[in-house]
Amino acid sequence: MDKLYAIGVDMGGTNTVIGLVDRRGNIPVRSAVGTVDYSTGESYVAALGNAINELITQNNFAGKVTGIGMGVPNGNMNDGTVEKAANIPWAKSTVVPLAAMISEKTGLPCKLTNDANAAALGEMTYGAAKGLKDFIVITLGTGLGSGIVAGGQLIVGHDGFAGELGHTRTVRHNGRLCGCGRTGCLETYASATGVARTAREFLELYPERETLLRNITARPITSKNVYEAARSGDAMAVEIFEFTGRILGGALADFIAFSSPKAIILFGGLAHAGNFLLDPLRKAMAKNVLSIYEGKTEITVSRLNDAEAAVLGASALAWEA
Amino acid sequence: MDKLYAIGVDMGGTNTVIGLVDRRGNIPVRSAVGTVDYSTGESYVAALGNAINELITQNNFAGKVTGIGMGVPNGNMNDGTVEKAANIPWAKSTVVPLAAMISEKTGLPCKLTNDANAAALGEMTYGAAKGLKDFIVITLGTGLGSGIVAGGQLIVGHDGFAGELGHTRTVRHNGRLCGCGRTGCLETYASATGVARTAREFLELYPERETLLRNITARPITSKNVYEAARSGDAMAVEIFEFTGRILGGALADFIAFSSPKAIILFGGLAHAGNFLLDPLRKAMAKNVLSIYEGKTEITVSRLNDAEAAVLGASALAWEA
Repeated sequence: MDKLYAIGVDMGGTNTVIGLVDRRGNIPVRSAVGTVDYSTGESYVAALGNAINELITQNNFAGKVTGIGMGVPNGNMNDGTVEKAANIPWAKSTVVPLAAMISEKTGLPCKLTNDANAAALGEMTYGAAKGLKDFIVITLGTGLGSGIVAGGQLIVGHDGFAGELGHTRTVRHNGRLCGCGRTGCLETYASATGVARTAREFLELYPERETLLRNITARPITSKNVYEAARSGDAMAVEIFEFTGRILGGALADFIAFSSPKAIILFGGLAHAGNFLLDPLRKAMAKNVLSIYEGKTEITVSRLNDAEAAVLGASALAWEA
Repeated sequence: MDKLYAIGVDMGGTNTVIGLVDRRGNIPVRSAVGTVDYSTGESYVAALGNAINELITQNNFAGKVTGIGMGVPNGNMNDGTVEKAANIPWAKSTVVPLAAMISEKTGLPCKLTNDANAAALGEMTYGAAKGLKDFIVITLGTGLGSGIVAGGQLIVGHDGFAGELGHTRTVRHNGRLCGCGRTGCLETYASATGVARTAREFLELYPERETLLRNITARPITSKNVYEAARSGDAMAVEIFEFTGRILGGALADFIAFSSPKAIILFGGLAHAGNFLLDPLRKAMAKNVLSIYEGKTEITVSRLNDAEAAVLGASALAWEA
């Protein structure tokens, strides 16, 4: 029988969402289990494995599923483990061989990788990177994640942890303090958190300037506040996105010198800031890129539905498995 | 009959060296033609093709050669062309389909790539990267070149021009003017030229400091002068290498976040500065690398013979062809 479906599992900080995905990226059935309701990897795997098995049998998909792909925080594609996942009690201080455990529980091949790599595979299978062999996906959420595909192959590195472009210091070496303990990391500027941080800095730096951002009473200010102010024509909010776009565009120019991608695909909440972010970003990239790459790399925004993208990305890994 | 040999062609700015290479990296016979003695690609190819054919027939290697690999300035591995090679009259202002022309002339498959990529393949086939699937070769010559291998595959990018790490500005965005027209490129610091430039800057910055470098009458000062002064215990010369190592080490920390290589292999004249360069480089890399990569990436110096490495690297491409 043809394998018509793949299981995509998006392990989030609270819930783990399971979707049965067809080759076109439709998700006819879904299910979920809690991620942090378990104290051991074994009990989490028991619950997740049961949910997957039920999803398959209750919908008469037995024998039609090619395998399971998972997007997992700190997931290591090389060996299928999750380790040092700070927010997950059962994987905080131990290495859990999650892919092998799920595979044993379900009888299906299982592969996993981190969220940004899953996003890159999702774009290649169902999204903006269809048909592309060289591209980079940048996820702009709380932090900045990245999935790099070169020659049609996801770059995972010797240890499975390649692609941490949010922690390069390509533009400001001595810059903002990052959660990783170093300074100047790209994600301290180019992320939802980074935009909010820039807003707070600008408000302090320019106490005399009028801006809608000063009227926001709920603190801390969020990137959404900045976006809404920019849409209302607020000059400072527009400048905050310009500042962000300039830094990200300068960094992308360096990333291009590494893998010469045909496209860089932006994904996640901040990507929806549209031209407030994209115009200065494209300008900075064009200004900073080495001449042999000039005009060759397209900047696009993901076309995948935000709510479905994580499950789709994870399922893309199963087609590869 | 088994294909026991590959032809490696190193196209330099003056001479093109041809070597017949066995699987262990021995070069039993060699030949050469001029690179710039020809006004058209056709006449260069006629001479080079003849030299290759003679090398094979005169030594009774007909039927034993698997193919030809070439290391070519501005060589494009994707389509086998050379274009905009500033120092080569017949390829200065035109795109020459060199690989196809040589293949037609010799009846052997021919692939080409740029020098740094050839160096990376050479290290993988014969050198320090044997058995490695994820590594970066950094060539430290007049400029800084790079060849990146990820998952066992050379990263060439959508256009064949990936891996210009000498033109990233990872450490100093507003720095020295580079030959590419931008500022702060890594190679303006970390290269033989960069070291010489640092020496000139230091001499001007610290006119009161005593240093052997002030006694050198032949100008401009070279990186070799600085190395010799450092070996004689000259404090300023040692500091010049420390400065260079700090910048290169900081940049390597960012490159690791891209492809998480198992090793970074330094090649070329400046790599022989040994611990004058390597100690500060390793220190800066350790200080700047993201914690998940800490202590995982080895810095080594190429073990290939400088005089042979370019031909070996080029021949490695032929085994792949």
